[in-house]
Amino acid sequence: MSIPDAMPAAVLTRHGGPEALELRSVPVPRPAAGEVLVRVTAAAMNNTDLWTRRGAYGLPGDPDALAGWRGPIAFPRIQGGDIAGEIAAVGDGVDPARVGRRVLVDPAFYDGEGPDAGPVGLLGSEADGGFARYVVCADARAHDVGASPLTDEELACLPVAHGTAAGMLARGRIAAGETVLVTGASGGVGLGAVQLAAARGARVVALTAPGKEEALREAGAAEVVLRGAEPGALADAVAHAAGGPLDAVVDVVGGPLLPALLDRIRDGGRWVIAGAIGGHAVDLDLRRLYLHNVALVGSSMHTPAHFAELVADALAGRIRPRIAGRYALTDIHAGQDEFARSAYVGKIVVIP
Amino acid sequence: MSIPDAMPAAVLTRHGGPEALELRSVPVPRPAAGEVLVRVTAAAMNNTDLWTRRGAYGLPGDPDALAGWRGPIAFPRIQGGDIAGEIAAVGDGVDPARVGRRVLVDPAFYDGEGPDAGPVGLLGSEADGGFARYVVCADARAHDVGASPLTDEELACLPVAHGTAAGMLARGRIAAGETVLVTGASGGVGLGAVQLAAARGARVVALTAPGKEEALREAGAAEVVLRGAEPGALADAVAHAAGGPLDAVVDVVGGPLLPALLDRIRDGGRWVIAGAIGGHAVDLDLRRLYLHNVALVGSSMHTPAHFAELVADALAGRIRPRIAGRYALTDIHAGQDEFARSAYVGKIVVIP
Repeated sequence: MSIPDAMPAAVLTRHGGPEALELRSVPVPRPAAGEVLVRVTAAAMNNTDLWTRRGAYGLPGDPDALAGWRGPIAFPRIQGGDIAGEIAAVGDGVDPARVGRRVLVDPAFYDGEGPDAGPVGLLGSEADGGFARYVVCADARAHDVGASPLTDEELACLPVAHGTAAGMLARGRIAAGETVLVTGASGGVGLGAVQLAAARGARVVALTAPGKEEALREAGAAEVVLRGAEPGALADAVAHAAGGPLDAVVDVVGGPLLPALLDRIRDGGRWVIAGAIGGHAVDLDLRRLYLHNVALVGSSMHTPAHFAELVADALAGRIRPRIAGRYALTDIHAGQDEFARSAYVGKIVVIP
Repeated sequence: MSIPDAMPAAVLTRHGGPEALELRSVPVPRPAAGEVLVRVTAAAMNNTDLWTRRGAYGLPGDPDALAGWRGPIAFPRIQGGDIAGEIAAVGDGVDPARVGRRVLVDPAFYDGEGPDAGPVGLLGSEADGGFARYVVCADARAHDVGASPLTDEELACLPVAHGTAAGMLARGRIAAGETVLVTGASGGVGLGAVQLAAARGARVVALTAPGKEEALREAGAAEVVLRGAEPGALADAVAHAAGGPLDAVVDVVGGPLLPALLDRIRDGGRWVIAGAIGGHAVDLDLRRLYLHNVALVGSSMHTPAHFAELVADALAGRIRPRIAGRYALTDIHAGQDEFARSAYVGKIVVIP
């Protein structure tokens, strides 16, 4: 298959509203040494696309600064961190037999070579991403998933959300038999956490909005608690559903929920947090941590080891993402509108 | 040696000021099955003695409640968690050959039998402690230290402060070669953390009050930063002394220092906290945790594994506590006055 010179792409031109994301024709990138060119067959949307567009991450020492999650964004930037596709070309030093392989792209850049290296960048943020016909990535980051029973659309739902969820479960040392609260359970990361925690033998209490109970039970939640009550009453409802103290909380909400629920965790329990759609400024009583050996564990994305585990899950068919909608790349603004309304359960896929 | 029926003891009669701690004659306890009676040759003071007396720990959901660290205290209660001594008698099922052994008492009660069990009680708080001529404890908690080069007074300095410090270093995964800030570095736990972190190969930046620099360098600190500046300037001074981002913070201070210093930790760094003499209510920006894989790890005392490591350190003479003062049990109020003024570096020993 010949590779064109130009391609359509969703390009972030500055921090701002939906109009800051423009559909443009851009040059098809060329893989450098050690890289591959991936023809994108399916991409998917994440909260980080919207946060990055808005510049909502702040900076250390300047919490209101407009910035991406790692600092300033180099515009123009093609967004999109979730990518499944096929290797279309290889750079110098990469085995040409890789061309044609069906791959799932690990969108992370790491601070080292080992399995426990930390993520310090993301396709779609620190380099061009997959809301386009083609994307380049390091050869080592394009995982062969030819044998997976999942479709390309299902695979594209995994990297950012399930990768983040896998990182949370690992960093929070979530173990089989533990009772775990998952907040924001119908969102991408939350639903991924429900699926992965249940697949690993934990008992999941899911916190979500009304109307989404059935989808969450299908995903593996043992109990569903509806949000909306004030934090104290919500904490009581969670404790009732859990039937006792929680072993851990897997949280993407933060805000007033955190201080209200922190003392419902057992001694030695963990609160793992990867986002704060409910507010990032919290009042914390440090005694609730240090008197009970409770850890508040920040979790950003995944390590190479976490992603390898996720690829193994995908190859074995142990998890099956839920697709809530599909949009052509040219309809990405309509897709992001639906995404922002959160009236669905599952992932929204983008077809380039 | 015959065992008397009565003994002098410092008994906490209620939550309150110094007058709530009374010197009384009380019955010598008898060891139950599986327990030993230890003749106390040296005890030592800790912040927890004063916090428990004042009831300053609060309760989950009621932060201003008067309570001990685990909840209500059963008065009257003999205080004192740091105990070195000699086994004077044994209960049923304990080898009589244990009588006469020189022992260091692990003051913790645990929630299980394994090496990683969590602490859920403390001699001097949940049971009678060592500010007395005799104390009972489980046979398994009286560690044979006959071979240690440390004096009984030095040994008595270890359990609570160095045990807490050992728990912090382990839970914070402090590794050789890392740069670690220790706050409150001239206090019991802080000085223990400086000594243990340096002994384990970490580079220690110690935060302390003026006049204590030399003692901290002797204890192993590579750099000393003086407290007193406002939090932002203090964070700059710490970063300058560290020569770059910190790998970890070992903190007993909390308060405004925490938000000011949190973004001086590297990605993947850890902030371990075991106390909050600078204030337990903090404003936390959750993004500073979850965007950087930073964990805020509450650390309460030690596990059996941590204490066993500390006993091994004591047997090998790898650490040598610093004794700042000695008081007879009958002078305990004067000793606690000196303790509360914090004008010294090291531990204050109580001789019964």
